[in-house]
Amino acid sequence: MSGDRGRRLAELLVRFGANVQPGQVVLANGDIADHELLREVTAECYRAGARHVEVGYVDPYLQRSRVLHGSDDAIGFAPPWEFDRVAAVAEAGCATVSLSGGTDPSVLAGLDLDRLGRDRSPVGKEWLKAITDRAINWTVGPAPSARWAAVVHPDMTPDAALETLWTEIERVCRLDDPDPVASWEHRMSTIVAVARRLTERRFDALHFDGPGTDLTVGLLPSSTYVSAGDMQTVFGVAHRPNLPSEEVFTTPDPERVDGHVTSTKPLDVSGTLVTGLRVRFEGGRAVAIDADQGAEMMRARTAVDDGAARLGEVALVDGESRIAGLGTVFYETLLDENAASHIALGAGFDYAVDDERDRSRINRSEIHIDFMIGSNDVSVTGVTRDGERVPVLRDGAWQI
Amino acid sequence: MSGDRGRRLAELLVRFGANVQPGQVVLANGDIADHELLREVTAECYRAGARHVEVGYVDPYLQRSRVLHGSDDAIGFAPPWEFDRVAAVAEAGCATVSLSGGTDPSVLAGLDLDRLGRDRSPVGKEWLKAITDRAINWTVGPAPSARWAAVVHPDMTPDAALETLWTEIERVCRLDDPDPVASWEHRMSTIVAVARRLTERRFDALHFDGPGTDLTVGLLPSSTYVSAGDMQTVFGVAHRPNLPSEEVFTTPDPERVDGHVTSTKPLDVSGTLVTGLRVRFEGGRAVAIDADQGAEMMRARTAVDDGAARLGEVALVDGESRIAGLGTVFYETLLDENAASHIALGAGFDYAVDDERDRSRINRSEIHIDFMIGSNDVSVTGVTRDGERVPVLRDGAWQI
Repeated sequence: MSGDRGRRLAELLVRFGANVQPGQVVLANGDIADHELLREVTAECYRAGARHVEVGYVDPYLQRSRVLHGSDDAIGFAPPWEFDRVAAVAEAGCATVSLSGGTDPSVLAGLDLDRLGRDRSPVGKEWLKAITDRAINWTVGPAPSARWAAVVHPDMTPDAALETLWTEIERVCRLDDPDPVASWEHRMSTIVAVARRLTERRFDALHFDGPGTDLTVGLLPSSTYVSAGDMQTVFGVAHRPNLPSEEVFTTPDPERVDGHVTSTKPLDVSGTLVTGLRVRFEGGRAVAIDADQGAEMMRARTAVDDGAARLGEVALVDGESRIAGLGTVFYETLLDENAASHIALGAGFDYAVDDERDRSRINRSEIHIDFMIGSNDVSVTGVTRDGERVPVLRDGAWQI
Repeated sequence: MSGDRGRRLAELLVRFGANVQPGQVVLANGDIADHELLREVTAECYRAGARHVEVGYVDPYLQRSRVLHGSDDAIGFAPPWEFDRVAAVAEAGCATVSLSGGTDPSVLAGLDLDRLGRDRSPVGKEWLKAITDRAINWTVGPAPSARWAAVVHPDMTPDAALETLWTEIERVCRLDDPDPVASWEHRMSTIVAVARRLTERRFDALHFDGPGTDLTVGLLPSSTYVSAGDMQTVFGVAHRPNLPSEEVFTTPDPERVDGHVTSTKPLDVSGTLVTGLRVRFEGGRAVAIDADQGAEMMRARTAVDDGAARLGEVALVDGESRIAGLGTVFYETLLDENAASHIALGAGFDYAVDDERDRSRINRSEIHIDFMIGSNDVSVTGVTRDGERVPVLRDGAWQI
């Protein structure tokens, strides 16, 4: 990694993404293999006036070890102080910067998929709560690496693959613009305006229609469209939860989703690749899950609690997305979800529903798994309470 | 690192060192560069039936970043949940396995030594309390690495240096014996017997006499000699706090240390090398500190609180020590302190003082810094309450 490239990416994530404030404690997280970029993030946080940076390294080999050698009661366990820590972090109003990208699928290869599926940290739901409570200013950004580059560009030499991935990441993060922040603010103003218009229409449902897909996603009366361009904490700090971010999203009605849907991109679920995912919904519930690869992992995850088989998010992405423009599959939801419209199984977002009464109907779960269902071949249509059909996306272009 | 070598070292540390029990939560810690050995430790903990292994990676570059770029109130700060975590770990009766070895001195080179000296984690004293309360079964062991090998054997090729360091570590950890645990138990039975005889004599003081050294260390009436061969937690789990361990040690009288002493080995204080250390004591207090290198670091550390300039430990090591036998300087206290008798500035150990009234006189501090003062040229003599002088160590051999 070039030090200058890393520093510019870290600067974008710390200053524009999480928007770290002087005096804040920052939690920075990433794969142990991405420690160089984590060091750049840490330095930038201290330059921004952080009181402290607590760096959490993730090593996927530790999970491999637990699934291979751990006793049954080691699977899915976390010690009590990890729960207390999240509560304290939320109460203190901290910032988080997380790096994501390119889990090496070979690390978790050959493991018992049932044990692996059950080995999710129970602390995850505490983090979801902190996020839905808007208690922390957070961001997730990409960490280019040789490991990831080999997955995205397997036919290139390692050097060429890494160089290409870096160039692509810089492109989609707008770091190739002279003023990346100004470029992001311009793009986000468009997305914020689309979200406002969608919210004003108060559609009763969204209908997705394309190859292998005929799905109607019901909405709550006060489902509100949100984008990374208008997120802020309860203590008033604006932040961009994902960089890059090209989506508008809302929380649907978990009891009114019907039809079938086929994923348009692969997805990575905790290191397991899921491709060709096909899901059939009845009355909001995923009643049949198949896939070309990884179906067992998806079935295990959607069985962890009642809400895990229902939707918590529906998101729309137009063809102006730089990620859609590249056409690269990154095998990384952070990027791929911004190439295409998508839905998520699991927890919904309170802040994407306006009315207190509707909030009690939001889907609850300890999981939240996005998968991509949009493409230029998939049309999206808004359905009003009167049954009127209003074009929303055609050939990847906003119609609203 | 050869996988088999790493696995055998990890097995010794987990099974014999920390003596991890089924169902325990284990905290494993080490430099991020030693992640391969940490993975071996983690796997061995799970094989031993650990409920959970929480791995803490230490990255010295993060401290460099804080000292270089952090605001003044970032220096020496830790968030409140870190304190709560240690208390919870102690209450739960966890195990810890820490890897140590070969801080690259260049990482902290060129930093402001005053800021660096003040940038100690305030959580350290919580760990000292957990240890002195015997609340956790813990061990610290060596992690051989290319980085460390380059410091110990700078004139060799990298491959030869690493191979030599591994062979030396295996020698001093008794991994070259067919049954390392049996070998350790035999050696420790000797050390335990020496400790018992020293305790029975109830010397009033120990006198160290050699080149550059004429130091009398007063003892408390109930100072008791302890070794790694007879340590156990309050819940009854025997463990070996350091591997290798060749020392017998006790807690001295912090108000009766007089004379001058010259270190016989270099020491590493949080990444700063201290060589040729010379300390003059009056009435228990270090009143003058000089060194060929690193004196400023030692002066900063001994100024952090009142007890930091007084002794909390005096330890004796005989010439049968395999570390003494090698003659190698490891620039790592874990090993070097077991080559030679030593003293430590800072916190004393409650469990090395028998009488409740004497315990109130034990030195208290948030630091504990060992430095080596023994060699075959330094004689150690016990002084009885009547002034009788009893030889304890002559030419590296026990006289008692």
